[in-house]
Amino acid sequence: MSSTTEQATGARTWSVAEHLDDILTAVQPLEPIELNLLDAQGCVLVEQVTVPVALPPFDNSSMDGYAVRAADTERASEASPAVLTVIGDVAAGSSGTELTVGPGRAARIMTGAPLPPGADAVVPVEWTDGGTGAGPARTMAPHSASPQGSGGQVRVHRPVTPHAHVRARGGDVCAGDVALEAGTVLGPPQIALLSAIGRPAARVRPRPRVVVLSTGSELAQPGEELAAGQIYDSNSFALAAAAKDAGAIVYRVGAVTDDAETLRATIEDQLIRADLLVTTGGVSVGAYDVVKEALTAVAEEELGEAEGEPAEGEEGEDAEQAVHRAHVDFRTLAMQPGKPQGFGTIGPDRTPILTLPGNPVSSYVSFELFVRPAIRAMMGLADLHRPVVRATLLPPHGAGDEEPAPLTSPEGKRQFLRGTYTGGERPEVRPVGGSGSHLIGALAHADALIVVPEAATKAAWGSEVEVVLLG
Amino acid sequence: MSSTTEQATGARTWSVAEHLDDILTAVQPLEPIELNLLDAQGCVLVEQVTVPVALPPFDNSSMDGYAVRAADTERASEASPAVLTVIGDVAAGSSGTELTVGPGRAARIMTGAPLPPGADAVVPVEWTDGGTGAGPARTMAPHSASPQGSGGQVRVHRPVTPHAHVRARGGDVCAGDVALEAGTVLGPPQIALLSAIGRPAARVRPRPRVVVLSTGSELAQPGEELAAGQIYDSNSFALAAAAKDAGAIVYRVGAVTDDAETLRATIEDQLIRADLLVTTGGVSVGAYDVVKEALTAVAEEELGEAEGEPAEGEEGEDAEQAVHRAHVDFRTLAMQPGKPQGFGTIGPDRTPILTLPGNPVSSYVSFELFVRPAIRAMMGLADLHRPVVRATLLPPHGAGDEEPAPLTSPEGKRQFLRGTYTGGERPEVRPVGGSGSHLIGALAHADALIVVPEAATKAAWGSEVEVVLLG
Repeated sequence: MSSTTEQATGARTWSVAEHLDDILTAVQPLEPIELNLLDAQGCVLVEQVTVPVALPPFDNSSMDGYAVRAADTERASEASPAVLTVIGDVAAGSSGTELTVGPGRAARIMTGAPLPPGADAVVPVEWTDGGTGAGPARTMAPHSASPQGSGGQVRVHRPVTPHAHVRARGGDVCAGDVALEAGTVLGPPQIALLSAIGRPAARVRPRPRVVVLSTGSELAQPGEELAAGQIYDSNSFALAAAAKDAGAIVYRVGAVTDDAETLRATIEDQLIRADLLVTTGGVSVGAYDVVKEALTAVAEEELGEAEGEPAEGEEGEDAEQAVHRAHVDFRTLAMQPGKPQGFGTIGPDRTPILTLPGNPVSSYVSFELFVRPAIRAMMGLADLHRPVVRATLLPPHGAGDEEPAPLTSPEGKRQFLRGTYTGGERPEVRPVGGSGSHLIGALAHADALIVVPEAATKAAWGSEVEVVLLG
Repeated sequence: MSSTTEQATGARTWSVAEHLDDILTAVQPLEPIELNLLDAQGCVLVEQVTVPVALPPFDNSSMDGYAVRAADTERASEASPAVLTVIGDVAAGSSGTELTVGPGRAARIMTGAPLPPGADAVVPVEWTDGGTGAGPARTMAPHSASPQGSGGQVRVHRPVTPHAHVRARGGDVCAGDVALEAGTVLGPPQIALLSAIGRPAARVRPRPRVVVLSTGSELAQPGEELAAGQIYDSNSFALAAAAKDAGAIVYRVGAVTDDAETLRATIEDQLIRADLLVTTGGVSVGAYDVVKEALTAVAEEELGEAEGEPAEGEEGEDAEQAVHRAHVDFRTLAMQPGKPQGFGTIGPDRTPILTLPGNPVSSYVSFELFVRPAIRAMMGLADLHRPVVRATLLPPHGAGDEEPAPLTSPEGKRQFLRGTYTGGERPEVRPVGGSGSHLIGALAHADALIVVPEAATKAAWGSEVEVVLLG
């Protein structure tokens, strides 16, 4: 209905795609910093990492057993073992140069221990008598509390070839190899490699610090008693959780009352720790649309003062001036829910700010469509969006025998309905709850958004629809 | 090779499935605790949450506009608007009882504000002149800094029906409704609902605190200079990252030297903050298999002292006795990599402990197969495992024109090779790197594990294989 009026009055509306494009064009990946490996988990590497030293750094044993000269075992068999003199132990962590294995000799060696000079192969302990003279060994007697050189003889019951059970120096990666390319997301296996080549830290784009702030004089904090006319603040909780899921470090600011000065002061306070600000509420056409009022008034004020003002970041700029540097574009989007949206920058660092509508479902859908990609773009991730699939639209569960009326959607608007998705060979999606942007109960049981495109005014049961998969 | 020997000597081997079953049978979901909503994110709800008060808690406006009696607008049209006297403002957060809308009257109302007594519908501001007498309004003049009662007249250009643009009390959820069932995982939409119904906290199973500890005298910390015979510790980093990914709160303990007493003391220190202990290394058949030595000796010691000893947890039990309560079963698994595994409990609280092999690839694969499901079981999650799919096995990239030899796998062992997976209609997987359990470089470029079952000794190119999708 209002779109007709808007068209009548010539007001511009933006499509979802246009708004998203504008946001992603404006939002920049954060400046890289050096982070300790475990702090860098999930972040994007910005440097090409090369291998400084070969891995393994030295020839070492892949088995517990005996380091030997392969030639000495050439004729070994079950019936006629090769008998070698044991000259000592080589433990993992020893320098590997304490012993030299001469002809007819063997050194007891542990997995990962350096192959001692003279030896060219390892006989697994299971192929020997373990130096006990009592047949094949299943274990080497532990004596870590007081390691000492072994002595006596070992019977080897099978021949080994040169290099058998030896991991060659550089067999994994060589010095100078590219370990990881710039752009790699650091998960556990990449962290394994970086630590294995001795890197305690990596140069990555950090996680953005996102301040989430809800507005509304009607908002009470969960746990408090509700006064007449009040509802509980849910947006700041939901979006804080969603921002964390998207990869951000989140600071939740509880509900700010509908007063432009209070809101300005709060935003100003928060700027210091924000790479991105997200507000909910106060962006519609109402008399108490505090976000719009606070940031619009500010922009106009700056506009009036622009000439002759000190340049951005110059000394002498006080906090009040800083927050006055707001450039926020409030828009009407051709979408439902989520029509009123704002996006711009604020403060001396031109911190990006997204102002979302206040209805809980509207703000959550807006977050998924606009804020999540912005957070991921700031992290430098290539994959910004939720998976989008196609599925057959089925009536809601519990609809009964009679087929319900088809889904309707306002003309010219992209509608996002909450749904439950079932994957597999023939993916299906069913709406859950109505289209009301205040229906949080239904949202909590949805795992997908059903998209009804701008051109469509209805979606028939059994037709194929586009589905955004959540979480 | 060794499996043959083991069979010859009658040693028992366990299958991957048996070992996993034993772990999941022994590991218990953690006791639930009350956590603040944002701390409970990703956790499993253990209570059925019912709605305490209806949502919305009162009839309220879904639009910015005018609260009216619908009957007063019945004959309104563009040409002949209904003219109503504006008696004041109703803001969101007001109690909604300050004004009563009589016949021929209207109250300016904001989205979310309570419908005042007397009114039964809301006319959107876009259908009025906004009280200006100047045709359809696109906005309501903001005045949040000094809200004040509106006066004058408003022209309504379209009729509304009763209940139009009014969200009815209880239209979302009603008092007594089930908001969320026990077993629900709390994501952003569920957190939205809990906060919306006034819940500041929820009773959930907490994230397990997992202590990750690597052993080996050969291990240096990344960033240090490597001495002869040393390699960098990567397991404690990789598994700490993997445990965090699995949902745990992680404490990484750097490499512990191959000394049973030191290891015992370290484990004892860590028990206080551990719901689960994970060690790497020291569980093979070698002379320096410190984990095995420390925990086996201990178990035997306890066995000998069992009679006449104070019962578990009794007063007077000192720290040394506590750590002595170790029951760890060291096993040979029919798998590659990852043959030597241990699982048991330790300390007065019978804290579960998983002792993984020390080769980096072995420990990572073991983590994915055994530790990740254990962590998720402790969280009470229903979905414990990585997705397993089937895909066509293709030769490695860069294999050249000539078809390489087929993949081989030791008989009787379940082999897990690193691979790169491509999804879609015809999923494909290609091996990356060899089967060596020290090949971290290849691991860092893999996103899947290719499974070659126990019965198979090779997997031909073009055949269909089972694939575990990582990360």
